[in-house]
Amino acid sequence: MSVTKARQIVLAARPQGKPRVTDFRLEETAVPTPGPGQVLLHVQYLSLDPYMRERMDDRESYQPPIPLGDVMPGESVATVVASHRPGYSAGDIVLAHTGWRTHALSDRSDLRKLDPAVAPVTTGLGALGMPGFTAYAGLRVIGKPKRNETVVVAAASGPVGSLVGQLAKLAGARAVGIAGGPEKCAYVKDELGFDAAVDHKGADFAAKLAAACPDGIDVYFENVGGAVWQAVLPLLNQFARVPVSGLVAQYNDAGQGDRTDRLPATMRAVLFKSLTVRGFINYDFAADHYAAFLREVGAGIADGRIRYREDFVDGLEKAPEAFIGMLQGRNFGKLIVRV
Amino acid sequence: MSVTKARQIVLAARPQGKPRVTDFRLEETAVPTPGPGQVLLHVQYLSLDPYMRERMDDRESYQPPIPLGDVMPGESVATVVASHRPGYSAGDIVLAHTGWRTHALSDRSDLRKLDPAVAPVTTGLGALGMPGFTAYAGLRVIGKPKRNETVVVAAASGPVGSLVGQLAKLAGARAVGIAGGPEKCAYVKDELGFDAAVDHKGADFAAKLAAACPDGIDVYFENVGGAVWQAVLPLLNQFARVPVSGLVAQYNDAGQGDRTDRLPATMRAVLFKSLTVRGFINYDFAADHYAAFLREVGAGIADGRIRYREDFVDGLEKAPEAFIGMLQGRNFGKLIVRV
Repeated sequence: MSVTKARQIVLAARPQGKPRVTDFRLEETAVPTPGPGQVLLHVQYLSLDPYMRERMDDRESYQPPIPLGDVMPGESVATVVASHRPGYSAGDIVLAHTGWRTHALSDRSDLRKLDPAVAPVTTGLGALGMPGFTAYAGLRVIGKPKRNETVVVAAASGPVGSLVGQLAKLAGARAVGIAGGPEKCAYVKDELGFDAAVDHKGADFAAKLAAACPDGIDVYFENVGGAVWQAVLPLLNQFARVPVSGLVAQYNDAGQGDRTDRLPATMRAVLFKSLTVRGFINYDFAADHYAAFLREVGAGIADGRIRYREDFVDGLEKAPEAFIGMLQGRNFGKLIVRV
Repeated sequence: MSVTKARQIVLAARPQGKPRVTDFRLEETAVPTPGPGQVLLHVQYLSLDPYMRERMDDRESYQPPIPLGDVMPGESVATVVASHRPGYSAGDIVLAHTGWRTHALSDRSDLRKLDPAVAPVTTGLGALGMPGFTAYAGLRVIGKPKRNETVVVAAASGPVGSLVGQLAKLAGARAVGIAGGPEKCAYVKDELGFDAAVDHKGADFAAKLAAACPDGIDVYFENVGGAVWQAVLPLLNQFARVPVSGLVAQYNDAGQGDRTDRLPATMRAVLFKSLTVRGFINYDFAADHYAAFLREVGAGIADGRIRYREDFVDGLEKAPEAFIGMLQGRNFGKLIVRV
C-alpha cells in the first residue's frame, strides 16, 4: 500500500440541531499493526447512513452515544491488507464495521466476505446490505402488503425506499414513492417502476399524495417522520401497517416546532383505524430472514428486476460534508464515500 | 308492565370539551308496537361506556357521529315483553343494542340471550361483555404477556382494566394498575390481586409508577391516553407491546394543551425500543376469540378467580350525569344504569 499514514474522522462536538463540519475532526494516525487473531483492513468504500446522526447526540438510541473524540461509526467495504486470522488472506474483500477511517484492525467474527463475481461489492452497503435488509424485513414481517394494496414510502430514491417500492411491486401491490424534487421523482417512477411519485418539496404536497393514493394507504413504511407523516396520517386505511425504521426528519430537530401537540391525532388514528405502528431495527429479524433476503434480492439484482443507484463522494475528508448533505436529502441514491 | 310511556335520552347538542347535562334531552314517547319479526324489549340495565363520548362529536370514529336529536347509543340488558320473532318469548333476558331508553324494538340477529343461572345478567355489560372481551382480546392477541413480564393498565378498577390485570396475573405476569384515589388503589391491589397500584392523582405519579415497575414495562394496555402515556413512555422496555383500546383522557380534550408536540418523543420510542403500538376494537377479534373468552372468563368468574365490581345508578334520567362523572373517573367499577 502506498499510504503510510492512516486517517480517521472523529466526533469533535455534539451538534445543536443540524450538524456542521466543525462537529467533526480529521486526524492522522499511524497505520496500526495487527496482533494475533487480527486482520488489518484498508477501507475502500464507507457507507453514510441516517442512523449515525442519532448516535452523535448525548442520549440513548439503539446504542450508547458516540463518546466525544471517538471515531464516527460506520460500515464499509474493505480489503484485507494483512491477516493473522484463519480464513482471511490479503486481498480478501469484506464488509466490516470500521467506522470513518482509512485503516482498521478487526478480530470481529461478523466480518462478511464479499464476492465481486456475485454483485458489485458496494451493494453490500446498500441494496444487498443493511439498508436493503431494512426494507425487506420491514415489508416482509410488518408491512405484509397484499395484492393491490397501496404501499407508500418516503426517501424513495434512497437505498431503503427504493427497495421498499420495488419489493411492494413484486408482491403485486401499488407503490407510491415520495422524493425531493422532479429529478428524483422521475427516477422513482420511470426507472424504479413505482406507480406514482410525489415531490415533497412541491406545492400542495398533501393534496398530491392524496391524489396518488385514491384507495388510501395500507402500508406506510416510515423512514423519515415529520411533515410526511402528517400528510400520510389522514390517508391511512383501516388496519394499515406502519413499520418504523427511521425518523431522519426529526433527528436534526433540536425541539423548535410550531408548538402544536400532534400526538393526540396520531393516537386517535391508531385507535379508530386499528393501525399497527411498529418500530424495528433490521438485526431484530436477521436470524429468521437474512438468508432469504440475500437470495431473493440478490437474484432480483442479478436479473435486473431490482435496480439501485449509488451516489459516490471521493475522499474520506469529504465525509462530513456529504453526511450533512444527506440529512437534507442532497444525495441521489445510496451515499458512499470512496476512501 | 306498569310503564305506559316510554322514555329516551337523545343528543341535544354537541359538547365543547367536557359534556354537560344540557347536551342531553329526556323525551317521552309512546311504547312502540312490534311488527312482524320484531321483539319489544323493556330495558332493565343500560351500560355507560367511554366510547359513547367520542360518538357525540361531529367527526368519524369507529362509526359516524350520532345525529343531533338521535337516541344515545348503548348496550343494555333487556327483557322481551312481546315477541313476533321465532326463538324469542316474553320473559327472555337478552343483551341488546337499544340505546339510552326504556323500550325498544329489535329485529337484530345479534341479540344474545343471557342465562341468569350462568352468571348475573349484568356481567353481560361488563366482565362477560364488551369491556371484558376488550381486555381479553387486547391482551391475548396484541399484549401477549409472558411469565414474569410487567403489564400496566390504567382505569384499573374499571371493567376493562380490572380484567386486564387479572388475566395478566393468570398468565404469570406482574400486574400494575393505575387508578384514581386511595380507595380504588386499595381495591385494585387487595381485592383484585394486582402486584401494585399507583394513584394517578397522587403527588409524584410518574416516579411512583417507575418505582412500581422496577423491571420496566413489557405490556401497556392503553385505555386512557394523555398524562398516563407520558409517564409510561420512558418505562417501556425493548419490544414492549401497546394495545390501544381507548383514549378517554383525550376524548374530552377540545384542543387546549400546553403547546408541546409530544409526537416526536413517542415516535422516537417506537423506533429505538422496537415498540408495537396497535389500535383495535373488540369486534375485530370476535370471530376468532369470543367463544374462548366466554368460556375462560366465565369459568374464572364462576370459581371466583376473576372478580369484578359494578357501580349502579338508579333511573334513566340519571344517565347523563352518571356518564359525565364516568369521564372524570367518578364511578367505581362498571357503570350501569338501572332503568
